Amino acid sequence: MNQSGTFYGIGVGPGDPELLTVKAMKALKIIDVLIAPKTEKKSDSVALSIAQPYLKPSVEIIYQTFPMVKDFAEETEVFKANTDEILHELQSGRNVGFATLGDPMFYSTYIYIFRLLEPCGVKIVTIPGVPAFLAIAAQIGRPLAYGNDILTIIPATADLEAINTALDHADATVLMKVYKNFPEVVDALKARGMIEEAVLVSRCGLDDEKIITDVAAHKQEHLNYLSTILTRRNHD
Amino acid sequence: MNQSGTFYGIGVGPGDPELLTVKAMKALKIIDVLIAPKTEKKSDSVALSIAQPYLKPSVEIIYQTFPMVKDFAEETEVFKANTDEILHELQSGRNVGFATLGDPMFYSTYIYIFRLLEPCGVKIVTIPGVPAFLAIAAQIGRPLAYGNDILTIIPATADLEAINTALDHADATVLMKVYKNFPEVVDALKARGMIEEAVLVSRCGLDDEKIITDVAAHKQEHLNYLSTILTRRNHD
Repeated sequence: MNQSGTFYGIGVGPGDPELLTVKAMKALKIIDVLIAPKTEKKSDSVALSIAQPYLKPSVEIIYQTFPMVKDFAEETEVFKANTDEILHELQSGRNVGFATLGDPMFYSTYIYIFRLLEPCGVKIVTIPGVPAFLAIAAQIGRPLAYGNDILTIIPATADLEAINTALDHADATVLMKVYKNFPEVVDALKARGMIEEAVLVSRCGLDDEKIITDVAAHKQEHLNYLSTILTRRNHD
Repeated sequence: MNQSGTFYGIGVGPGDPELLTVKAMKALKIIDVLIAPKTEKKSDSVALSIAQPYLKPSVEIIYQTFPMVKDFAEETEVFKANTDEILHELQSGRNVGFATLGDPMFYSTYIYIFRLLEPCGVKIVTIPGVPAFLAIAAQIGRPLAYGNDILTIIPATADLEAINTALDHADATVLMKVYKNFPEVVDALKARGMIEEAVLVSRCGLDDEKIITDVAAHKQEHLNYLSTILTRRNHD
């Protein structure tokens, strides 16, 4: 009987291939199978293109399509089918990697797979990565949080009421996935004097990176899926 | 006249030397001078010990002591003196690196140096790093934030009122620097039903890493400077 393989959740960082960690590189080199997650809307996998140069020639790449999760309980079937496929590979003794843009435990599809695999008794190694919001702060020269700042990270896919309540209490703020609810987010930032400080960055570290400082004038239809706003409220 | 050197703010990650990025490694290899920040309380520099294996043999290491900043306006003199020393090295044509544990733009001493150097017209490159809270989530197998979670990051050095207000509105929560205000933080988490879910991790990825799941029973005097709590409130 084969010994089961190890499952590696690999954070490949925000987009720039040099923002991969040594640990992630090493894991990519030893895996036999790479799961490349795709969303229903997009055909390419940014995570895969970052991982590709490090993979061994014999690696098998399995594309798995995932829905954008609104209610996990309602969408478990797709995740279960994908998890079963991974389990099958592990049980045949192969090491399987799951490449995640940014960090695996931070707003990623990996979390749902991790939760389904964890009770199965397979060996899981999760390798953290640099999330986009930190790469953006470095890239635009904007200190994100310092001293006693409280930092609030808000996915713009949340309910507007939840977004507004969070912004009421936020000082240093990161808004992720702002392709969603963009006009409402802009209005919410305006109402709190937080729009002037806002910077919008999409596809940070990739060839088509965009940095937008006049966020209020930006049009939603030009927003990429990988778009983030950094801002803060000045209490003084 | 010499051309000025470049200033590199280098995030060396949370502690595990393999959680350094390729970009950070490359910068460490080309710098002529490494600034190793120390606090007044501690003699060693964790950031330096991570960086050391990558440095070129001829590198000069300059130790700089920094106060724990309560009010930056009151403590600028030390920062200005340290900045002047860095400027002097840059102006003599040497490339200078500043090693930061975790990420440079995320609650770090680097931010104050960056702010003082930015108006001086020197070339600055900031390289992001994996912050401790993400390494902890990966290490203990705890998804940090997912779906529409709002993530609140709170330094326990803040005013208790600010901490309590932030916790009132938090769901997924990271509490940093919990060596400070530890009993008060534990009480605040208890009052909100957030202590059962809490995990305290200190010196993640280092040889003396500690993972504490019974946070309420832990004693403040055993807390290391590099201690973080992950928790969340279950609204259901």
